[in-house]
Amino acid sequence: MKRIILLISILCTTAAWAGRIVTDSIQSSVLSATVKYNVYLPSNYERIQEPLPVVYLLHGLTDTYTAWAEKGGMKDIVDEIIGCGESRPVVIIMPNAGNPDVNNVWNGYFNMPGWAYEDFFFQELMPTAEQKYRCAADKQHRAVMGLSMGGGGSVSYCQRHPDKFSSCFAMSPWLNSESGRVGPNGEKTKMFYTMEAVKEHSALAFMDNADEATQEQLRTVKWFIDSGDDDMLTNDAFELYKKMRITRLQAEFRVRNGSHNWEYWRASLRQALPFASRNFDK
Amino acid sequence: MKRIILLISILCTTAAWAGRIVTDSIQSSVLSATVKYNVYLPSNYERIQEPLPVVYLLHGLTDTYTAWAEKGGMKDIVDEIIGCGESRPVVIIMPNAGNPDVNNVWNGYFNMPGWAYEDFFFQELMPTAEQKYRCAADKQHRAVMGLSMGGGGSVSYCQRHPDKFSSCFAMSPWLNSESGRVGPNGEKTKMFYTMEAVKEHSALAFMDNADEATQEQLRTVKWFIDSGDDDMLTNDAFELYKKMRITRLQAEFRVRNGSHNWEYWRASLRQALPFASRNFDK
Amino acid sequence: MKRIILLISILCTTAAWAGRIVTDSIQSSVLSATVKYNVYLPSNYERIQEPLPVVYLLHGLTDTYTAWAEKGGMKDIVDEIIGCGESRPVVIIMPNAGNPDVNNVWNGYFNMPGWAYEDFFFQELMPTAEQKYRCAADKQHRAVMGLSMGGGGSVSYCQRHPDKFSSCFAMSPWLNSESGRVGPNGEKTKMFYTMEAVKEHSALAFMDNADEATQEQLRTVKWFIDSGDDDMLTNDAFELYKKMRITRLQAEFRVRNGSHNWEYWRASLRQALPFASRNFDK
Amino acid sequence: MKRIILLISILCTTAAWAGRIVTDSIQSSVLSATVKYNVYLPSNYERIQEPLPVVYLLHGLTDTYTAWAEKGGMKDIVDEIIGCGESRPVVIIMPNAGNPDVNNVWNGYFNMPGWAYEDFFFQELMPTAEQKYRCAADKQHRAVMGLSMGGGGSVSYCQRHPDKFSSCFAMSPWLNSESGRVGPNGEKTKMFYTMEAVKEHSALAFMDNADEATQEQLRTVKWFIDSGDDDMLTNDAFELYKKMRITRLQAEFRVRNGSHNWEYWRASLRQALPFASRNFDK
Repeated sequence: MKRIILLISILCTTAAWAGRIVTDSIQSSVLSATVKYNVYLPSNYERIQEPLPVVYLLHGLTDTYTAWAEKGGMKDIVDEIIGCGESRPVVIIMPNAGNPDVNNVWNGYFNMPGWAYEDFFFQELMPTAEQKYRCAADKQHRAVMGLSMGGGGSVSYCQRHPDKFSSCFAMSPWLNSESGRVGPNGEKTKMFYTMEAVKEHSALAFMDNADEATQEQLRTVKWFIDSGDDDMLTNDAFELYKKMRITRLQAEFRVRNGSHNWEYWRASLRQALPFASRNFDK
Repeated sequence: MKRIILLISILCTTAAWAGRIVTDSIQSSVLSATVKYNVYLPSNYERIQEPLPVVYLLHGLTDTYTAWAEKGGMKDIVDEIIGCGESRPVVIIMPNAGNPDVNNVWNGYFNMPGWAYEDFFFQELMPTAEQKYRCAADKQHRAVMGLSMGGGGSVSYCQRHPDKFSSCFAMSPWLNSESGRVGPNGEKTKMFYTMEAVKEHSALAFMDNADEATQEQLRTVKWFIDSGDDDMLTNDAFELYKKMRITRLQAEFRVRNGSHNWEYWRASLRQALPFASRNFDK
Repeated sequence: MKRIILLISILCTTAAWAGRIVTDSIQSSVLSATVKYNVYLPSNYERIQEPLPVVYLLHGLTDTYTAWAEKGGMKDIVDEIIGCGESRPVVIIMPNAGNPDVNNVWNGYFNMPGWAYEDFFFQELMPTAEQKYRCAADKQHRAVMGLSMGGGGSVSYCQRHPDKFSSCFAMSPWLNSESGRVGPNGEKTKMFYTMEAVKEHSALAFMDNADEATQEQLRTVKWFIDSGDDDMLTNDAFELYKKMRITRLQAEFRVRNGSHNWEYWRASLRQALPFASRNFDK
Repeated sequence: MKRIILLISILCTTAAWAGRIVTDSIQSSVLSATVKYNVYLPSNYERIQEPLPVVYLLHGLTDTYTAWAEKGGMKDIVDEIIGCGESRPVVIIMPNAGNPDVNNVWNGYFNMPGWAYEDFFFQELMPTAEQKYRCAADKQHRAVMGLSMGGGGSVSYCQRHPDKFSSCFAMSPWLNSESGRVGPNGEKTKMFYTMEAVKEHSALAFMDNADEATQEQLRTVKWFIDSGDDDMLTNDAFELYKKMRITRLQAEFRVRNGSHNWEYWRASLRQALPFASRNFDK
């Protein structure tokens, strides 16, 4: 068996750059629950002296904090992007959105009755994790990105907290409840991200209602929206982008070939991390 | 839980194209062993009347027949490529190269003492699987591709059986034993694909020794080699390509950003399947 | 000077594939004018026996039949795409849309009062050029593509003549007159493609008004729309695509980084020609 | 005609970013000649307060300082890359390598008998142009890139002046005289870049002969080599890259589809400018 290892290590190039993923958790008073999260730490993390930029990478509905690592293969992608210089070394935090131990239906990145996740995120997760993992902890060194529900969460977080993030990258984002309309019989469920919480936090409505002062703040964030041509969520994604352009936000938009799946999001991540990186320190 | 499913099915676009993967096995007389393989069957497979082209997709050292499906996420990739018309519907066969049940060290696509895999491949696997899955079963509708050891296997199979394949796509191929030289103390192992079998089947040596008649046959295959700039196997890959050019084979060569990992091979597959498809029927 | 030539020919790889562009013209009875066009002929054109597929490649407003060759550098692009097998050898016809000799304001691909260009295109140009350049001259071997006004023309031609083209690739297409609304004072001009001709031929209105029989015919064409995220024509392009999806046409859509310029269209052509090619013979 | 302009300006998106190209010249004492150069100045150049990074963009054999603007369409490409944030605003200097007014055969970026171009470049062009166009004028804000002969020049300049450039991007570089071997009868020409000057400045030989101190300096430059699979200069390009890797330089290498032409170099420029930009200030 040793020889197998030996041979593998010969066949596989000694990678110049290889980060690692650690699993951590935080005991939340806001949620009365333990929330797990994965953290990508860059190569030589221990030896890096200066505080690092931080990226929040959000998963989608029915997935958990492990999805980006296990289904998304994010480590290979990030190692390569940092290794070839397309991104600075960063810490990447991938928190759990729901809590299967407590109630398998709670989910989403918004405050909902009995599950004030947004409060948890900004009051507990962010300060705790950024201190623990030596992050720079300011707008100019913080970005948020995510897929589907996590893409909607990313947009909403940057709309409601534009002073916290330098950039937002939304992959196939779920942006309002109309896109996730429910059921053949029109029945409403009461438990999910769709529904009142999403409706209330509609990213499209937010743009419509933003006053000039808010718009001015939104202009301090760099936006990127990427959604597949076979994904019906692209309709709302393009509507959001049009509103962003009219409002003169600094926004990019792409429609690539693909649908609502990991193959699409892996390619999104390849764009998202360099985008976040080049918008740090601006 | 039903509601979760409902919501997912709403969020995820009803994919226009979705194949499926089935697991099968063959009892080999040549190897005195049962060999498992995965088969990708295209959407509407049952309803397709005419015989389908077939692609052999080979895994690398220390992996098994499940690697392309589980680590490579090949289903999403193939679904999308066929769905948007970049490839014709195909059957994709992913056989196991070794046999952990018998002896965990035997591996590779060549005949080796006690493990005549190449014989098994051409005499047993190919006719059996192609009949069972209604493949066209001729050179003009058959392609082979693979990664690392499977890339070397693909090249070697097309060198030694050019009448069997219309095209060959080698991803980060392991082409001769020099590239996999063993050990800090120069010790040789006796068990692996490196070693005598690889040395004996060196794709580089094959090109050097090919007489004019052989060269003429090699010109009936379309070749594509793709290997990362951080992968030391790229050295031999480029040597092979240079020999192919001098010999006026129809060959393509790419070096993309990356190393010897699944992130690279997923992107390779995106090129490989359209390449195979457009070289069918020629 | 001979030595310069010698050295260049050494430095530049002996290209495996190199077509050529010839300029031709047709005396039109319909238009009472001479219409020039460029023709790309593939390498070894004279020696190819079988009839070739034909692609119509349309220029944009205020440009002429030379634009794709001179500004678009189409020869290098097409040589390379055919050379590496991403497209079959094709004849590419690039006709002039207007006629500066007669009246520098007439332009566009539609019938307009005194300038029945669409009639000319189908009744005179197509049969004459396809016979002269030995084209296969049927739907399964004919595609149309173009940029801006030529993108709109391509879509409209395929909507109104779906029995003539196997595929349509629209680059940054100008699809209806609303997108080209005129002037700060709302004044209408009378001379251009905008205006009544475009309004009358609106590709969006066509989709809205198509009956089931028409829709069924539209499903025999493969559609591809590609438009930049900084191009305001992308709004209508996406509207068209949404209508195509609802009508279950076979359509692809992309938004890449870019605006309304040749850099964008050169990249479009790299996608368009393989798309046309793989939809021949289906 | 006014109406044409009006309509064009409506059709073309009001580009958020549009630099301009100015033509300038310098009276060289070293060369006893006037040398022309084009300069790309970014949007809002006049209003930018801080010194700008500078990129030298070198043309190839038999071309002149206008080639990148006229054949390469560099303005559209650069506008877009800066406009979407993939590069910081930069000044781009495109000097003439030869001097047709004096002697149409002198060419190249090296010192040659009677034509000390390298001296001119570093002693006259660089200080003069960088002061005139308000460039930052230090290693951390200076990059060099070029195609073919200009790719070889870029590599050689960074090898011999590693304290002057933060990065080097070589497109299809001509790296030593063996690659440009002359003539069917083996005759040598006496006038060109091939020949003694190239042989003397062979980038391959330079790597072989670099002592440890020199290697250490080469490690302060970021290198990128990009050359097409149908370009025979790729052989030497890969040899150089292998030497760079062994010497542990920070280097990237790519082989894309293509040959020795503008279609390839336009795509190279799309990679080169972001590469230069992200390596400023490091």
